[in-house]
Amino acid sequence: LENLLRAIVDSLTFPVGDFAVLNLIAATTNAFNGALLARRPTHYRHYTLVGILLLAATAGIAGGVSRDVILLKIPAALTNPWYLILSGLAAALALSIEFRSGQRFREGMFQFMTALSLPWFAAIGANAALEAQLPIMSALAIGAIGGTAGRYVVDLTSDVTPKQFVKGEWFVGTAVLTSAVYVVLYYAGWSIWPATLLAVGIGFAFRLVALLRAWEEPEPWEPAEARAGEPSRRPLGEAISEEFRPR
Amino acid sequence: LENLLRAIVDSLTFPVGDFAVLNLIAATTNAFNGALLARRPTHYRHYTLVGILLLAATAGIAGGVSRDVILLKIPAALTNPWYLILSGLAAALALSIEFRSGQRFREGMFQFMTALSLPWFAAIGANAALEAQLPIMSALAIGAIGGTAGRYVVDLTSDVTPKQFVKGEWFVGTAVLTSAVYVVLYYAGWSIWPATLLAVGIGFAFRLVALLRAWEEPEPWEPAEARAGEPSRRPLGEAISEEFRPR
Amino acid sequence: LENLLRAIVDSLTFPVGDFAVLNLIAATTNAFNGALLARRPTHYRHYTLVGILLLAATAGIAGGVSRDVILLKIPAALTNPWYLILSGLAAALALSIEFRSGQRFREGMFQFMTALSLPWFAAIGANAALEAQLPIMSALAIGAIGGTAGRYVVDLTSDVTPKQFVKGEWFVGTAVLTSAVYVVLYYAGWSIWPATLLAVGIGFAFRLVALLRAWEEPEPWEPAEARAGEPSRRPLGEAISEEFRPR
Repeated sequence: LENLLRAIVDSLTFPVGDFAVLNLIAATTNAFNGALLARRPTHYRHYTLVGILLLAATAGIAGGVSRDVILLKIPAALTNPWYLILSGLAAALALSIEFRSGQRFREGMFQFMTALSLPWFAAIGANAALEAQLPIMSALAIGAIGGTAGRYVVDLTSDVTPKQFVKGEWFVGTAVLTSAVYVVLYYAGWSIWPATLLAVGIGFAFRLVALLRAWEEPEPWEPAEARAGEPSRRPLGEAISEEFRPR
Repeated sequence: LENLLRAIVDSLTFPVGDFAVLNLIAATTNAFNGALLARRPTHYRHYTLVGILLLAATAGIAGGVSRDVILLKIPAALTNPWYLILSGLAAALALSIEFRSGQRFREGMFQFMTALSLPWFAAIGANAALEAQLPIMSALAIGAIGGTAGRYVVDLTSDVTPKQFVKGEWFVGTAVLTSAVYVVLYYAGWSIWPATLLAVGIGFAFRLVALLRAWEEPEPWEPAEARAGEPSRRPLGEAISEEFRPR
Repeated sequence: LENLLRAIVDSLTFPVGDFAVLNLIAATTNAFNGALLARRPTHYRHYTLVGILLLAATAGIAGGVSRDVILLKIPAALTNPWYLILSGLAAALALSIEFRSGQRFREGMFQFMTALSLPWFAAIGANAALEAQLPIMSALAIGAIGGTAGRYVVDLTSDVTPKQFVKGEWFVGTAVLTSAVYVVLYYAGWSIWPATLLAVGIGFAFRLVALLRAWEEPEPWEPAEARAGEPSRRPLGEAISEEFRPR
């Protein structure tokens, strides 16, 4: 029992460096957003309290875990117990705020918090990729993955088309822009804190303007056959022979 | 050809340690369950025989592969060919039993087998996390992932809301309880076999009682707007200006 | 700024070995297919241009990233920027071809390109697994994952039952066959290029014949209760007591 208590205390006093603090803020914000998202009418699927806590914690750590696994590190969210603890608390806080507020307030808070955590995770992801000696292209990709993977998991779980791929006020665009700014500052020799703050500031401002002005990604022309149902599945041979049949 | 045959024989005589035996039992049970699950009316999506074998094998190894990838090990399910062989055989067995039995028997067998493999994978996951020097919080998380990741994959594939997040007779709760018991025993100095058996026994008993008594996770209050359709997407600017408009 | 430019130039002149060239061809083909797939009426979900580029790039690299993460390597698609660059270009090309062609031509091109990239990724996956000293069973599994993971991601994202599990003219079967041929050639001492070309040739031919002749995986008997709606959820205890009640 003494061993158990000592292990608990030791793990809670885990030393936190700069990177961990940035990461914890982003994960907590993302978990908060995840809980609000799971409760939106578009996403709510009769989730239980346990389910919402789990989904929020998953949203909180998914970006960081994906990033770390790809970079072959044991995920920070698992070596440091505070990620899961703070994510759980953030989810509980989100539920309690949701209970006491109107829909409009919730929507505004959700949009504001997402606008904050999105560039935050993107900057951290870009930094992690550059530190791992990956090329710039990958810094942008890992910034985008870090910033938006949590949303992907929640959308898939809730059977909603993931926001990355549909109109979303430049959701992924914001992550890529933030990562790009971070890359430029990194190569200009800035250190991690000021570079992160400036990149996040720019990404955050862009996101807010995109939300206020309803900037959207362009949609291509409608496919001729879309929504007309699946084309009947025919053997390729039949289709080809028909193609060459005289008309 | 001689090289090929020797490679096959060598790989089949892979030495199995304690950990591998535990793991193989859990994976085989999970594959068996996966095949039954894929055939349930709720999940069946005109899967082919090949599809059911694949989905069952995936369900069998998903928990262990997720756990190993997160802990930066080459997944045991790929270094040891018996995982895939036994998973395939278990899926075939499940199909053949399903063919010859009534729905009620199948349901009971499915629930019983799940109640067994769930805590089994949880205990193994918790042990692996502790052996990797991760904090207790992560042992609980990896226990939950190991025990329930297979179900998540099958549910997502079948377009069903994953059981982790909806009412499920404390599905994840059972995994966390088992992991917690394992953690306590681990710090009390128990060795792997007795600790696993006791933790699994407690988890299994809890699960059976939860099933028999229909214990369910609490659902929070219904969101006011749920099922009322998606709120119309308006630019944030419009919503804000409306908010501040005199009424 | 000079540093930034030098970093960009350096990363673009990344030295490409045999393995990288094979891999780049496969990834580019898969991204091309991914863009066409995202535009098919069955899969189109009002994706934006950004969304289609992202989904195509994901389809292009998903197989390789999954394979590399499982084998504990930093994904080639992230150490070499050409994967993402060529995937993006392939997606743009696919969109422009789609715009100018009829549906039948697109379908044929899609089927042809898939028939090519599927065995290609499978052979590379099998080779990577064998080089990592994994057993033959895992070479088949990783060949199948490499060849079909991209499709899984696109199908899940588009809310379509993943092709792996339903009738698909031996989609996974083609990947496993190709991997098996590669394994035999590998143990016969063939080197990577000829072994890949022969295995891919056989897989490609098999796939084309399967498409032309409409060979399909067998579907098992229909489950008695399928489509009859979910069985009402009753506590296991109630079901059991009913089971033993005299009739």
